[in-house]
Amino acid sequence: MIISTKKGTPQVEVQKIIDSFEAQGLQVTLIRGTDYNVFGLVGDTTKIDERQIRANPWVEEVTRVAAPYKLANRLFHEADSVIDVAGIAVGGNAPIAVIGGPCSVEGEAMAVELAKQCKAAGATMFRGGAYKPRTSPYAFQGMETEGILALVKARQATGLPIVSEMMGEDTVDEFEEYVDLVQIGARNMQNFNLLKAAGKMTRPILLKRGLANTIEEWIMSAEYIMAAGNPNVIFCERGIRTFEKYTRNTLDLSVIPILKQKSHLPVIIDPSHATGDWRLIESASLAAVAAGADGLMIEVHSAPECAWSDGAQSLKPDKFAAVIEKCRAVANVVGRTM
Amino acid sequence: MIISTKKGTPQVEVQKIIDSFEAQGLQVTLIRGTDYNVFGLVGDTTKIDERQIRANPWVEEVTRVAAPYKLANRLFHEADSVIDVAGIAVGGNAPIAVIGGPCSVEGEAMAVELAKQCKAAGATMFRGGAYKPRTSPYAFQGMETEGILALVKARQATGLPIVSEMMGEDTVDEFEEYVDLVQIGARNMQNFNLLKAAGKMTRPILLKRGLANTIEEWIMSAEYIMAAGNPNVIFCERGIRTFEKYTRNTLDLSVIPILKQKSHLPVIIDPSHATGDWRLIESASLAAVAAGADGLMIEVHSAPECAWSDGAQSLKPDKFAAVIEKCRAVANVVGRTM
Amino acid sequence: MIISTKKGTPQVEVQKIIDSFEAQGLQVTLIRGTDYNVFGLVGDTTKIDERQIRANPWVEEVTRVAAPYKLANRLFHEADSVIDVAGIAVGGNAPIAVIGGPCSVEGEAMAVELAKQCKAAGATMFRGGAYKPRTSPYAFQGMETEGILALVKARQATGLPIVSEMMGEDTVDEFEEYVDLVQIGARNMQNFNLLKAAGKMTRPILLKRGLANTIEEWIMSAEYIMAAGNPNVIFCERGIRTFEKYTRNTLDLSVIPILKQKSHLPVIIDPSHATGDWRLIESASLAAVAAGADGLMIEVHSAPECAWSDGAQSLKPDKFAAVIEKCRAVANVVGRTM
Amino acid sequence: MIISTKKGTPQVEVQKIIDSFEAQGLQVTLIRGTDYNVFGLVGDTTKIDERQIRANPWVEEVTRVAAPYKLANRLFHEADSVIDVAGIAVGGNAPIAVIGGPCSVEGEAMAVELAKQCKAAGATMFRGGAYKPRTSPYAFQGMETEGILALVKARQATGLPIVSEMMGEDTVDEFEEYVDLVQIGARNMQNFNLLKAAGKMTRPILLKRGLANTIEEWIMSAEYIMAAGNPNVIFCERGIRTFEKYTRNTLDLSVIPILKQKSHLPVIIDPSHATGDWRLIESASLAAVAAGADGLMIEVHSAPECAWSDGAQSLKPDKFAAVIEKCRAVANVVGRTM
Repeated sequence: MIISTKKGTPQVEVQKIIDSFEAQGLQVTLIRGTDYNVFGLVGDTTKIDERQIRANPWVEEVTRVAAPYKLANRLFHEADSVIDVAGIAVGGNAPIAVIGGPCSVEGEAMAVELAKQCKAAGATMFRGGAYKPRTSPYAFQGMETEGILALVKARQATGLPIVSEMMGEDTVDEFEEYVDLVQIGARNMQNFNLLKAAGKMTRPILLKRGLANTIEEWIMSAEYIMAAGNPNVIFCERGIRTFEKYTRNTLDLSVIPILKQKSHLPVIIDPSHATGDWRLIESASLAAVAAGADGLMIEVHSAPECAWSDGAQSLKPDKFAAVIEKCRAVANVVGRTM
Repeated sequence: MIISTKKGTPQVEVQKIIDSFEAQGLQVTLIRGTDYNVFGLVGDTTKIDERQIRANPWVEEVTRVAAPYKLANRLFHEADSVIDVAGIAVGGNAPIAVIGGPCSVEGEAMAVELAKQCKAAGATMFRGGAYKPRTSPYAFQGMETEGILALVKARQATGLPIVSEMMGEDTVDEFEEYVDLVQIGARNMQNFNLLKAAGKMTRPILLKRGLANTIEEWIMSAEYIMAAGNPNVIFCERGIRTFEKYTRNTLDLSVIPILKQKSHLPVIIDPSHATGDWRLIESASLAAVAAGADGLMIEVHSAPECAWSDGAQSLKPDKFAAVIEKCRAVANVVGRTM
Repeated sequence: MIISTKKGTPQVEVQKIIDSFEAQGLQVTLIRGTDYNVFGLVGDTTKIDERQIRANPWVEEVTRVAAPYKLANRLFHEADSVIDVAGIAVGGNAPIAVIGGPCSVEGEAMAVELAKQCKAAGATMFRGGAYKPRTSPYAFQGMETEGILALVKARQATGLPIVSEMMGEDTVDEFEEYVDLVQIGARNMQNFNLLKAAGKMTRPILLKRGLANTIEEWIMSAEYIMAAGNPNVIFCERGIRTFEKYTRNTLDLSVIPILKQKSHLPVIIDPSHATGDWRLIESASLAAVAAGADGLMIEVHSAPECAWSDGAQSLKPDKFAAVIEKCRAVANVVGRTM
Repeated sequence: MIISTKKGTPQVEVQKIIDSFEAQGLQVTLIRGTDYNVFGLVGDTTKIDERQIRANPWVEEVTRVAAPYKLANRLFHEADSVIDVAGIAVGGNAPIAVIGGPCSVEGEAMAVELAKQCKAAGATMFRGGAYKPRTSPYAFQGMETEGILALVKARQATGLPIVSEMMGEDTVDEFEEYVDLVQIGARNMQNFNLLKAAGKMTRPILLKRGLANTIEEWIMSAEYIMAAGNPNVIFCERGIRTFEKYTRNTLDLSVIPILKQKSHLPVIIDPSHATGDWRLIESASLAAVAAGADGLMIEVHSAPECAWSDGAQSLKPDKFAAVIEKCRAVANVVGRTM
């Protein structure tokens, strides 16, 4: 960590800063400039809060050199983590995961039927929302437990592991019992209570990026889950919020090479939420695979215009199959299978 | 609600759209253009999901004319709501509320002493964090129940109502019993489970704006709390995330006139989190009062450089008193008291 | 265009609005709701300014249904435009264009040598900055005319058409004479004087997206060039500004399918500026090709750490060749050549 | 400047970096950490390009400690700069400047009449657009020279200095001759050719912040003008682009205390463009004055619904007078006159 102080900082204040860091077991080196002084701290700075240091009125700037995360950091875990989702491997050189399914589960028959179609189209996992985070309190909030049980039936019928979003600590037991890959949604990426609860589960966690969260904050949220005891975290990019109005969000594919450089955890792309428009999904999916994604999560519905939520961004099963087919061709030429 | 369809939409598809809305009890008027058709829907469209309509491949654009919120909507509640916080009125023509206190409670003695200083400086409520949302799992997470009880002692010593952030549904009972104004933090603005839980409390709720949430989404989160049974919501702007690097966030004071136009609920400004820098707080506080804020929430600490969190954005009690004094002068000339 | 008026708008004001649009030759249809009225305008609304209509205090909202651009609009030009750049076709089913070269031209020998290396690696055009838009007035501002002439030598040596950025109207003659594809930089995307000047040139224009411009504004800037007489415009996405700090910009690949839907003009991707980091270029280039880009523009330098500008985002020629090789494989499986 | 290198950087590479900086006359101090090394550079780093250093593959991070600007830097010019605009002082303790006038000049009679009304309302300068930057090539582009001459008549009639936007280098002579305060618009904030041209003028320059430019970039653009010979620059904040949809832009008032800390130049606020809605102007103007602005620039039109551009954000003269009256009261209590 590097700290610079303002021009004219009295020697006694400089010394106070040095003393305070040395008291925390850090080595301090001072560089004197004409207009400022700079301190370099050597040692474990993970627990030091930059904003705390800035509270000192003589401090000009604080720069963190070492990343604030450890368990998620590739520096201390060179090999790719391969996460096991009920028998399906995600990450490393494993085949690219294909997660398909409806935004909302609309009943057992629908879930079973759609899971079969998704499997036939090439999906390796089945997703469905049972607890739905909706902007409006008047919108459909999901079938809840009934929806989870419908997903279980879909798994029984197809063998596909199931993926669903957990919205609160009150459903931890239900998800631990039934759901193979537990999703933490974008709006809960910094719901730290939920992250800690997920950290105590044995199920792998699919951690979506928040609407306006930096990659570093995202890794820190994975670190929360890992620090609480659950090392099995998969990142899922779903687009960030920008000024652009033609798309629901802006898909940031740079996260793929960056996460792979900074962390050892896998990363999956959700082109459905990123674009918000089914006509943009094929292009975004192909791009994600070419960029090196470890998986895709795509919304599928047999009659999007009748879906109970988010039909605008859902593919029909045959279109989904066609997209997967094209993605597989791209995967093959970039050295992956699918 | 206004819906436009693409050039070349077959008459049968146009009719299907009309039929589907009429089946929902809405009146449909059709405008035929050369390149597109437009439908106007008249009736209660609150429960209609725009994204659902967009799933229809013939639909080009959907525009909501009526706001999607009702309980928080000034259209249906003309008078300003004045929220009672343990005897302190917030909103309408009530004196501008002044909430001061530390980012984190650091013990009973500290809380009591600081509450006295804040009161002397002009604060009408005392704030302190007992449960802290921190980006890093390794950072101080708050004193929890011990912190809440320290705030209670501070209230006993000063008579000031206390304000603190509730992070999860597991502490609802504790907050209902002890805390006068229950804060929902920025990172939980769309934690819908928590909003529903807050809606079942009898305590008023201070709802912070999310890091990258629109004003409409923010009002919808208030609507969640109100729809669950708690009409006492106060908005709190704390800055939004932008590309600017010199400030922690960008304080958006336009929310004041906009919220007063769209809603009847009060709005408070938090210049500490918005700016992230104590040197910017005076300017932002004066601006907030001039812009019409119903209250200010400012972090105060007797030794910011030793604070357990966010010292960089805390004022010392004497500086806090000076800021309040200046704000009072501005309040008087814009027709408010403080 | 759809206009809604506020609850309680007097009939006389409603009639004034109708009269004013009818006077402009538009047909007006009125839909009456309980809380608002809605007008639909049918006819040519291209010249109507939404913000003008909003000046009427009775107006609540204005929505444009028809796009505000004509010449760039696919609705009126169904076939892909294929732009001829000194013999190299860009767009439609033409091979994906590969533009390589240094951020700044550093001399004739360097330009000639690097152009040969780029050609050997698979480039079909050669780029180089002679006039450089630099944030600091103290930074290297480019070799100017000497740089352009060096590019001309590079073209003579390799046959590659040359691409360079034009920063002002004072150099229009120079660019018209020497440069095959004239770039308008991101910071000048809404320098309307320059757009008009470019519209009077016979050379094709490479129009970069502004740092924070919407796709619609970008198309409108192309429309400026086209309306002034030059139909040969190629879009170039180079990343937009967001809150993310790990990348220089956020590359928005959704522009590819969106531009292809809204417009008939080709679109090229610049992964160098988008990411700002050479380690991210391969991933971004592969993604761009998979997403359907009509070309790539990549910075190449034989010794990036000695480059006069932007070395951090430049590839060495051998790495450039390897990236192109991989991109070609992806191009082939998505139905394109390269 | 602080540079950190990656874990495992060979000693020979470390030495190369040291040598290269020492060759540029800088003193280099090395701090060795367990996972990284850090270099501190002491000396004049203004001309060093951070991005250049990052091109070195062994470099992890580069942090600039000293600001990259000199002439605009308060560190080297402690006193506030007070800019003289044809006899009206702006900045320091001068009365807060009030610039009123229409978005577009619509004729001589209109300009003269409106200037009289603005003066009566309290304006100390008169603004009017003669060259208009419009998103659409089909929108009204301004009266050009005729508009400038109309402004001159308005000045003759009222004695108010005139302010107008210069869009290109081709009109430098016209602006130098006629216009008292030459505006560089937001879309041209990084049109470096125009900045250099403005730097050669003797007229003071009103430099608007770009739609998505950081405060540092903005100061660098002032530095361009100053480095070219014109020390008389006034900053003008007009809102930045964010995700929020209820306002045209987000007004960032934090620029006031920040610019006053970093620079010695005055700063004016434009609430009209910032909000885009006349109903929000009063609140924003009061806030700007309270926050410490050196001036306000507000659009005024006698019949906003008939204005040739931007009527939605214009005040009528009597409303303008009322806003100024209220602002004056706020100015007085924050220690300024108006």
